[in-house]
This record gives sequence, structure tokens and C-alpha cells, in this order.
Amino acid sequence: MRPELLSRALSLLPERSATPELARFYGLLRDYPQRGGKGVRSELLLASARAHGLRDTDPGWERALWLATALELFQNWVLIHDDIEDDSEERRGQPALHRLCGVPVAINVGDALHAYMWAAVGRADVPGAFEEFLTMIHRTAEGQHLDLAWVEGREWNLAPADYLQMVELKTAHYTVIVPLRLGALAAGVIPSEALTPAGLALGTAFQIRDDVLNLAGDPVKYGKEIGGDLLEGKRTLIVLHWLGAAPESQKAAFLDQMRRDRADKDPAAIDRIHRWLLDSGSVQHAQDYAQAQATEGLKLLERALAGAPDPQAAAALLTSVRELATREK
Amino acid sequence: MRPELLSRALSLLPERSATPELARFYGLLRDYPQRGGKGVRSELLLASARAHGLRDTDPGWERALWLATALELFQNWVLIHDDIEDDSEERRGQPALHRLCGVPVAINVGDALHAYMWAAVGRADVPGAFEEFLTMIHRTAEGQHLDLAWVEGREWNLAPADYLQMVELKTAHYTVIVPLRLGALAAGVIPSEALTPAGLALGTAFQIRDDVLNLAGDPVKYGKEIGGDLLEGKRTLIVLHWLGAAPESQKAAFLDQMRRDRADKDPAAIDRIHRWLLDSGSVQHAQDYAQAQATEGLKLLERALAGAPDPQAAAALLTSVRELATREK
Repeated sequence: MRPELLSRALSLLPERSATPELARFYGLLRDYPQRGGKGVRSELLLASARAHGLRDTDPGWERALWLATALELFQNWVLIHDDIEDDSEERRGQPALHRLCGVPVAINVGDALHAYMWAAVGRADVPGAFEEFLTMIHRTAEGQHLDLAWVEGREWNLAPADYLQMVELKTAHYTVIVPLRLGALAAGVIPSEALTPAGLALGTAFQIRDDVLNLAGDPVKYGKEIGGDLLEGKRTLIVLHWLGAAPESQKAAFLDQMRRDRADKDPAAIDRIHRWLLDSGSVQHAQDYAQAQATEGLKLLERALAGAPDPQAAAALLTSVRELATREK
Repeated sequence: MRPELLSRALSLLPERSATPELARFYGLLRDYPQRGGKGVRSELLLASARAHGLRDTDPGWERALWLATALELFQNWVLIHDDIEDDSEERRGQPALHRLCGVPVAINVGDALHAYMWAAVGRADVPGAFEEFLTMIHRTAEGQHLDLAWVEGREWNLAPADYLQMVELKTAHYTVIVPLRLGALAAGVIPSEALTPAGLALGTAFQIRDDVLNLAGDPVKYGKEIGGDLLEGKRTLIVLHWLGAAPESQKAAFLDQMRRDRADKDPAAIDRIHRWLLDSGSVQHAQDYAQAQATEGLKLLERALAGAPDPQAAAALLTSVRELATREK
């Protein structure tokens, strides 16, 4: 995230304590925000605010920055809990928080950071923003539930439509729809309802790109463990498409691995499955699907922004959304 | 909690979905609230609102009810996460949520319920309440961190003062101080600063009573697993006091058990330790300490409420606080 957002986030968080263990707690609160994410969603929010007529010299810009800070804090507390839920090993090139301090402490750190997110929302004091954050958490948690419940229940009898519903809930709202809407609200504009279908398509494209990169990306550019989704047993469009046409023996080998917990998975078998997936047409299929969603979403977004107060800023917003939905990393 | 609070809480939560797995998620959101806690903190809030001059026939009573609902939702999401953090087996006579649906799903249910708590705070729309909830979560999470970090670090080299700091943070704010302050705010009164020291003493008394009941309570009245704190390796005033004077052999046996995870603890050894604690003077010491804190806290609260708008309601508040701080269950 940009430094002016990080400094705002850190200014909300406590730093010093005469009790060493509390000072350590405060350090844990600052850990993920300081690891420096890309700030994709906060940039989208600020670009949307500009498209909706807010300039960074306006007094209201400060409010937009606080909303952007709140969005980054959302991302960070959610990632702490996600990493526990998925038992991820790494986050942004370092061990996941629960691998540094244990699951119980990390759950509690995420909860505290969740509350600091609300402090940032309060600081922004933008009418309508409180409700946007509520909606964002509700939808994201619903999508996350589908994902986790399928893992928990070893559920692989799923259609691509199930995956798409999950992704719309889990990714599209917090990655695209809500940042776009918050940008409008920061500019004092009632968000257009047309932002929602645009964001659903773009968010879907974004997540499928992420799934593709996780299997077939450049490890240096991508920055996450390649194949990590397989180890975590994630449902993706790629895997569900592949399961629909894979030879029975490959399917059986896949389901055998997916029945196991992460630690019990056989790395050699996972490598074989990884290669089957890459050699099948399913990665290409997902790539094509994502591209079509990106094209559709951009068309819808262009239309939704047709009457935007600042056409130049609206064009810039479309450019950054295009990069986001078709990214290589 | 009283039915009018439960119905308000449930009215905020989604119920039906065409997607069976989402309908299950909604059921999980409703699970803990529907198990029916005692509603201690919401009753305290409402009693404080009355003492501060609000009557249940006033239009503002509805706002007080929403704040009380938010407090109950706070209690419920925190308990879901607490039960994971402590790996508790039961909650309110039924399996803890994570034992029904797994840890990942339960973390996510707690997060969603946390957001619904903020929806209730928003619905109440009481000036100052938003900040009270922020403070409450911050302090509670700090106290929870101390508790969890000591368990994680197998830290037993602690003084009673460490325990008391933990309890003030973890229990006193959300059990006494914030309910009393929220009651004042609901009545449109700026909370007296004198409520804080009163609440710290009363909250401490409440938690130590709970620790005593957990070891020495009547299983039927208490409703929780007797000795559960020992199995969970909880630091209590009783244990820290006992460690200061116990025979070396007993201390060694105790620390040997406490080094183990819950599942590896030896039930017979835990039973022996339980008896040593009961036979030592440490339970009585803790009981006396709690009694002194209760007396002091009640004196401070009586003084803080001296000019309360409704003296009769203030007297009723004192009576219920007295019952709370000296409870048998």
C-alpha cells in the first residue's frame, strides 16, 4: 500500500507498553500491514474517488485516504484469519502469522485488527461507508464459508457454477465492487447500481487469473508458492473443469490426495497432478473464461462511468482495472 | 439473554438461502446466540440506563435495547473464538462450535458475527457508543493476548499482579465498565469517570469468582466443566498463589502437566492437582480477595451513582451488581 496509507494505519495502532508482552502484541498487530501488500484495492478506491470528481487537493481527499486505509486494514485482518483457515505457510515472503505466534494468538490479533479497521471507518466519517463495510464483510464471509466448508467436507462434487458463486461472494465484493462504491461515496456521489454487475465480472476475472497464476505463474513475479492452492485443496475453475473430463485413474489419484490433510499429502503425487493440470486444456479454458469476464466487466464499467464527473480520471480508472483483471503477477 | 434482545439479534442475521451450504452458514451464525446465555452484561447495561434516567417507556429505550443486543453479539462472537483459542469442549451444555464444524469454518463464523455486532451498534445510533465498542474490543483483546501468550509460551513465572492486569483488561471492561458506560450514553448522559475504577474492582471480583467456581463450584449450578481451567492451563489467582507456597514435588507435578497439550494431560494427575488446590488455602485466599474487591467496587459504584437521575433505579443497579460480583453460579 502507499506510504500515506500505511502511516495512517500505523497511527491508529498502539505502539508502546510498559508490559513487554503487550508491546509484543502491538508488534503483531503491525506485522502484516508492514509487510507491504500491493494495495490493489485501496488504489482502486482512490481512482474511483477521482473518477467521481474528488481531487487530491479537495478537503474530502483526507476522508478518501481514511477509507482506503480501512480497506487495507480489512485486507490485513482477513489475511491473518485466512492464513490460519488455509494453514498457509507464507504470506508476502515471510512465515504466516500463526506460524510465528501460534493459532490462538493469531486469531486474537486478527480480531483486534478487525476492530482497528472500524476505527479507520469511523475516522473517515463518510456517509454510507459504514454500511458498505458491513456488506463487504458479510459477502466475503459467505464466500469464504463456501470455500472452507467444501474443504472441511472433502466436497469435490461441484459444478463450475458453484465455484463462480463462491468467487463472486468471496472476491468480487471486496476486490472491486466495494472499492468502486466507496470511491463514489468519498466523492459525495451515490454509487451507480451498474457498478455491481461490472464488479462481479471483473472480480471473477481477477480471482481466476489468481488461480491460473498460482498453478502456472512465474514464481518470481507471482511472489506466492506456486501450486499452493493444490496443497491447500482449493476448489478452482481449473480443477473443476479438469475433473469433468480427466481419465478415471488421474481423478482417483487426485481425490486420494485431496482426502488428506496438507501435511499428509504426497509431494510427488501433487507434482504429477500439477503437471496433468498444466497439460490438460483446463488452464487455457480458465484463462479464456477470465479474459471473457474481464472484457465484459470492462464494457459494463465503461458504461457505468459514462457520465462520470471527471472523464479523464474515469479513463485512468478503466486502465488500472484492465491491468488488474489481466495481471501477470 | 432476554427474548427481546435475542429477537433483535436474530432479526439482523440472514436466515434463508437457495444455496444449502449458505443456509447452513446462517444456522451457524445463529447457533451460539440461540443457546441462551445469562445476559449478565446486557442486563447491566439496561439497569445502568435506568439509573441514568432512561425509562422503558421512553422512545430512547429502543436504542438502549439495540446497544444491549450489540453487547450480546459481542459476547457470542468472542466466545466462538475463545472456545477455539482455548480448545474448549463445551459451551452452554453443547459442543463448542469448532467441534461441530471445524476450526476454519468456526473462525469465519465468529468474524461474520463480529460484523453483525457492528450492525447492531449502528442500529442503536447512540452518540459515543461506537467508540465504547472500539475500546471494549481493544482492551479485551489485550487481556486475551496476555492469557493466550502465557499458555503458548508455557509461562508460569508470573506474579498475582500479572494475573490482575490480565483480568482487568480481559474481563472488567466488557463485563462491567463498558455496560455501565453504555447505559449512561443510552440515557443521553456523559458517563462518569468514576465508573472505571468501580468497574475494574467489580470485574476483577467477577472473574476471580468465576475462577473459584470453576474449581470448587457446584457442577449443576455452574453449568461448565468443573476443573476445565486446569485442563486448559489457565492462569488464575488461585494457581499463582498456590505455586508461591506449594511443596516442590507438587509444583513439579503441576508444571509437568502444564507443559502438555490438553489431549496429553493425565486426567488422574489433573485430579490430584485439583485436590491439592482445594486443600490448600489458595481457594480461600482468592475468595477473600474477590470479596474485598467486590466490597471496594460496590463502595466506589455507590459513590459514582450518588447523583444519579433515578435513585431507585440506581439502588436496583447496585443490588444486581452485588449479586453478580458474589454469585454462586
